[in-house]
Amino acid sequence: MRKKLAVLAVLLLCMGVSVFAQETIETLGFSLDVIWLFIGAILVFIMQIGFACVETGLTRAKNATNITMKNVMDFMFGALVYWALGWGFMWGKDALGGLIGTSEFFHGPMELTIENGNFYKNWFFQVVFAATSATIVSGAMAERTQFKSYLIYTCFISAFIYPISGHWIWGGGWLGSLGFHDFAGSTVVHSVGGWAALMGAAVLGPRIGKYVKGADGRVTVKAFPGHNIPYAALGALILFFGWFGFNAASTGAAAVGGGGIWSGLGIGRVAVTTCLAASAGAVSALIVSWIWFKKPDCSMTLNGLLAGLVGITAPCAVVSPGAAIAIGFIAGALVVFSVEFIDKVLKVDDPVGACSVHLTCGIFGTLAVGIWGNVEGVAVGVLHGGGFAQLGIQAIGVLSVAAWAGIISLVLFLLIKAIFGLRVSPKVEMMGLDLSEHKSEAYSGFQIFSNM
Amino acid sequence: MRKKLAVLAVLLLCMGVSVFAQETIETLGFSLDVIWLFIGAILVFIMQIGFACVETGLTRAKNATNITMKNVMDFMFGALVYWALGWGFMWGKDALGGLIGTSEFFHGPMELTIENGNFYKNWFFQVVFAATSATIVSGAMAERTQFKSYLIYTCFISAFIYPISGHWIWGGGWLGSLGFHDFAGSTVVHSVGGWAALMGAAVLGPRIGKYVKGADGRVTVKAFPGHNIPYAALGALILFFGWFGFNAASTGAAAVGGGGIWSGLGIGRVAVTTCLAASAGAVSALIVSWIWFKKPDCSMTLNGLLAGLVGITAPCAVVSPGAAIAIGFIAGALVVFSVEFIDKVLKVDDPVGACSVHLTCGIFGTLAVGIWGNVEGVAVGVLHGGGFAQLGIQAIGVLSVAAWAGIISLVLFLLIKAIFGLRVSPKVEMMGLDLSEHKSEAYSGFQIFSNM
Amino acid sequence: MRKKLAVLAVLLLCMGVSVFAQETIETLGFSLDVIWLFIGAILVFIMQIGFACVETGLTRAKNATNITMKNVMDFMFGALVYWALGWGFMWGKDALGGLIGTSEFFHGPMELTIENGNFYKNWFFQVVFAATSATIVSGAMAERTQFKSYLIYTCFISAFIYPISGHWIWGGGWLGSLGFHDFAGSTVVHSVGGWAALMGAAVLGPRIGKYVKGADGRVTVKAFPGHNIPYAALGALILFFGWFGFNAASTGAAAVGGGGIWSGLGIGRVAVTTCLAASAGAVSALIVSWIWFKKPDCSMTLNGLLAGLVGITAPCAVVSPGAAIAIGFIAGALVVFSVEFIDKVLKVDDPVGACSVHLTCGIFGTLAVGIWGNVEGVAVGVLHGGGFAQLGIQAIGVLSVAAWAGIISLVLFLLIKAIFGLRVSPKVEMMGLDLSEHKSEAYSGFQIFSNM
Repeated sequence: MRKKLAVLAVLLLCMGVSVFAQETIETLGFSLDVIWLFIGAILVFIMQIGFACVETGLTRAKNATNITMKNVMDFMFGALVYWALGWGFMWGKDALGGLIGTSEFFHGPMELTIENGNFYKNWFFQVVFAATSATIVSGAMAERTQFKSYLIYTCFISAFIYPISGHWIWGGGWLGSLGFHDFAGSTVVHSVGGWAALMGAAVLGPRIGKYVKGADGRVTVKAFPGHNIPYAALGALILFFGWFGFNAASTGAAAVGGGGIWSGLGIGRVAVTTCLAASAGAVSALIVSWIWFKKPDCSMTLNGLLAGLVGITAPCAVVSPGAAIAIGFIAGALVVFSVEFIDKVLKVDDPVGACSVHLTCGIFGTLAVGIWGNVEGVAVGVLHGGGFAQLGIQAIGVLSVAAWAGIISLVLFLLIKAIFGLRVSPKVEMMGLDLSEHKSEAYSGFQIFSNM
Repeated sequence: MRKKLAVLAVLLLCMGVSVFAQETIETLGFSLDVIWLFIGAILVFIMQIGFACVETGLTRAKNATNITMKNVMDFMFGALVYWALGWGFMWGKDALGGLIGTSEFFHGPMELTIENGNFYKNWFFQVVFAATSATIVSGAMAERTQFKSYLIYTCFISAFIYPISGHWIWGGGWLGSLGFHDFAGSTVVHSVGGWAALMGAAVLGPRIGKYVKGADGRVTVKAFPGHNIPYAALGALILFFGWFGFNAASTGAAAVGGGGIWSGLGIGRVAVTTCLAASAGAVSALIVSWIWFKKPDCSMTLNGLLAGLVGITAPCAVVSPGAAIAIGFIAGALVVFSVEFIDKVLKVDDPVGACSVHLTCGIFGTLAVGIWGNVEGVAVGVLHGGGFAQLGIQAIGVLSVAAWAGIISLVLFLLIKAIFGLRVSPKVEMMGLDLSEHKSEAYSGFQIFSNM
Repeated sequence: MRKKLAVLAVLLLCMGVSVFAQETIETLGFSLDVIWLFIGAILVFIMQIGFACVETGLTRAKNATNITMKNVMDFMFGALVYWALGWGFMWGKDALGGLIGTSEFFHGPMELTIENGNFYKNWFFQVVFAATSATIVSGAMAERTQFKSYLIYTCFISAFIYPISGHWIWGGGWLGSLGFHDFAGSTVVHSVGGWAALMGAAVLGPRIGKYVKGADGRVTVKAFPGHNIPYAALGALILFFGWFGFNAASTGAAAVGGGGIWSGLGIGRVAVTTCLAASAGAVSALIVSWIWFKKPDCSMTLNGLLAGLVGITAPCAVVSPGAAIAIGFIAGALVVFSVEFIDKVLKVDDPVGACSVHLTCGIFGTLAVGIWGNVEGVAVGVLHGGGFAQLGIQAIGVLSVAAWAGIISLVLFLLIKAIFGLRVSPKVEMMGLDLSEHKSEAYSGFQIFSNM
């Protein structure tokens, strides 16, 4: 009898310890995921700084305060409206058969349950992605947009445009259900921002002096060199730095086992493909610009670096390091030709090349999943025996997001133009937006020739 | 018999595995906490860079090396004296009934036990908070303080002033025991730095040319515009970036379960309230400055961003996202009026608005706990049925820290002034502190008008 | 019978839960290590930005684009060749008795097993170390090196020079087997880069106007002041920030228990010794420069900060905080005298003091292990009763790496010089490398006197 009691006691002890261990393990796993998404979120957050530096550095000194302010304020307004509305449209309960989310607006529970903890950790990770999409546009519309009109636009993209297509792909909507694969957002984030950038720049028209018709009727395309190249490079490297979080933390979890790309095992490879694609993009753009323009051009090389990053964003978890290098190389070359095409053929004035980096390479990266994808059950591309099935689905995604983001942002910019005005006056543009819109100089005391 | 042995064997195996699992889980939990505090610490560390950029950008080019050096060196001296003395005063064995810590000076054990591991992980997290408090002052005293006198001050605040009141609140002292709640340091860090900043600026007197008496006896207040606004914005965004660690890692732990605000569950919400309060602060200051000064002022907006952050620092873990937005909005407006008040009514010359950001909003954030606090058992404020109890305790904290930090830093600056001198000569001030104190230019080769 | 079955059931349940728990714990531990190395890797990555800022800030405005480009591109080329070749030479299967690794070239497995996951997480952590070693050289060779020749050099150091000596020490080679201790790379990374920097600068010769022979035959040494001191300080602080990852994540793991320096317990102390040594280095260089040059020199102080960091890199895990301060103080003084010695006695023109920071202090830090080392079983130095055994082994490491990296990089630079040319023409040098090599200005619009 005593023996039996002893056995029973040990059994209960074992069970107790096991159950306790199990609960502690779950808590640990949750906390690990919280920390992982926190790291990811702050890394994506710092990309806001990267964009500010790149766009400031590549434009003229007389507009430096203005472009900085835009980059700061699109995050601030964006965060508020994404909390109020955007999150609900993107991640709320699905309605209309995969078209839109419809719950968790103005969400903010006080009880610290696992469910609410998940909401908070995910919201922080998501808001910085929304802000990235919004801030892409500021560069393409630089040096001639009214400040207040830009603020109006930015509220709409963060509250509405970005969340809707985001719902389609990541939020449980129809594109995701179709098998469309966009691991970290070549389409969800970059193409959406890229479409808005292209429409914004087109509706605005070029900066004064950009396209000059000569006496012979030929149009000369003038380049306005940026006023601080090291600052632009600082920005590009900060973007690279933050992009590791953008891509790697899109595993969404670290604690989950099982070997899938959405687990802790996926993190390392995503970091490696991201690193190699970016490197290949920069090397490729350097070489192409060296041959094409006969000089190792710095801003092109930086854009090549970013092109490689945008290109690998969708496929980063489903391709090998070798494929990542191929994708980066192509994206880096693509961005140079895209800049030339948009600048000289389309004649859309995009001061920093944002459309080429985010739209052209966003599309390319999304399609790359259907070419180099090599993870059974997720995405198998043309080169790995998957035929054209995945590529077709990726193309559907590209086209539907083009239709959505392209048309809605075109309408939005036309409406803003009609109601509030979109562009500053020529006098203001010549004087610079810093002195006119913000009534201050960016570089007080420095001797600057600002109309070069 | 064999069966019994088998049962026994399995039982022992289970126990063994369980105990082993338990130990491994504890190790994992410890390591997770180490990593979490490491992340927090480096994020607070990078705020040092943010302060350097903000203060450099908002002052004149002729003092850029000097202000940079101050921001670098207050960390360096601060870290050494905080290791030698500050840690012990703040976290050592309590003495005098909650007034001061008295052990672990010059602490540095070699054995890697859990206890010692905890010391090291906590020290790294704490030293960067001490440095934040110290570096707040450099902005308020910019452009006219002797370099060596600033170094003397900075040793005192990190070794003594900050640790003592820190002990009262966080180190096991009397204010914490009273129920005073300051989650991440609106009072412990920001108000203490803010009081020292105010006293320092007041003892120094205004920069030459700041307050000019006209022939009619009226005083004109001159603004000296900063020499690099994008750099200041870079700094403000870096501060925002780092503040996520400042606030979220003040949970102190990630591995602890149980749903309290000091557990892994608290992290996500702190990040969200921090993000939203900062955003609301920037939006609010933008709007107020737009109405008040008739322009969307960049430096005011950046100060609004920081105001929102300082305001949410104390209550970040006990308020809802909605309340965080309210707190941010108020802080953002408050900072604009506080800058005007200190500049034009008090006539204390604070070149970067440090007193308004850190002292005014630090006090407001501390009181906000007593208004919007909504976590049972920690802090329940006026708006959530807690009556005025918590608010009263918060007010006691504000007043006692005001008395301590205000008086001691006033005495300190007066002593430094009497013994070593605090201010540079008018000639040195006009020439700029770079050429006179450091015998070098910040921007060699650039054409600069430095006495605007 | 029923009872027995019940006991059996409970036993099986316990075993099941235990085994499941065990597996989950292992997964968690793996994921924690992945996250830890990810954090470490991105922190070391950001040091690339730090180097870019320091080197750009401390050189002249007319070469700012060029120096920036070099810092960007050495990472990009370096990452590609380190993936293709470097990793295999450093970490591949050992051959020739500890001399070289010989497998895992072009490695990129698609299956997400623990083994492959380890490869990816380690590769990401290692590539950034390789890049650090490479980028050290750009500063010493600034303002006069052909861009394409620098790119050729950088491929060789990342693919071959750095990995070979890295294999000796960290990759399972002969020096590591001997007991040589270099925790985070004072020798592996910094000395190797430092030797290449010294050889590169020596083969290149000084910048035009650096050493001017007067009519009396005496040589005047001219200092070319940097064009952006706050930017250089930003870089130094970013390096400090990143160095926490460089040193602390060199534990290699966080999940491992047991109390060793390579476990989660080691992390905290490494962060503390790193923090204190850097602080002591800056304070020491400030004081020494104040006495020696009669001014608190900013660039010297920043070099002192970096000197403290390089010095603590090898011994950071085996010394006490007090010893770290001693090491930092000595390194900070050493760097000032080393700069003077290299500049005025050796007459090697190193524009940013890279050789003094990375080579002189790298050697000192490596030897410091043999003096202050105080961890039984790892490294016990002269001051802790270990006699001269460890110091002797450290000296062997210093000498063999000097022979390897010094000779091979000398040969490499002589070969590049003979085949492609290493230095730009005097005309190009006077005009600045931005306009000549990259055909663009770094600061378009700013009025700059570029030949000071």
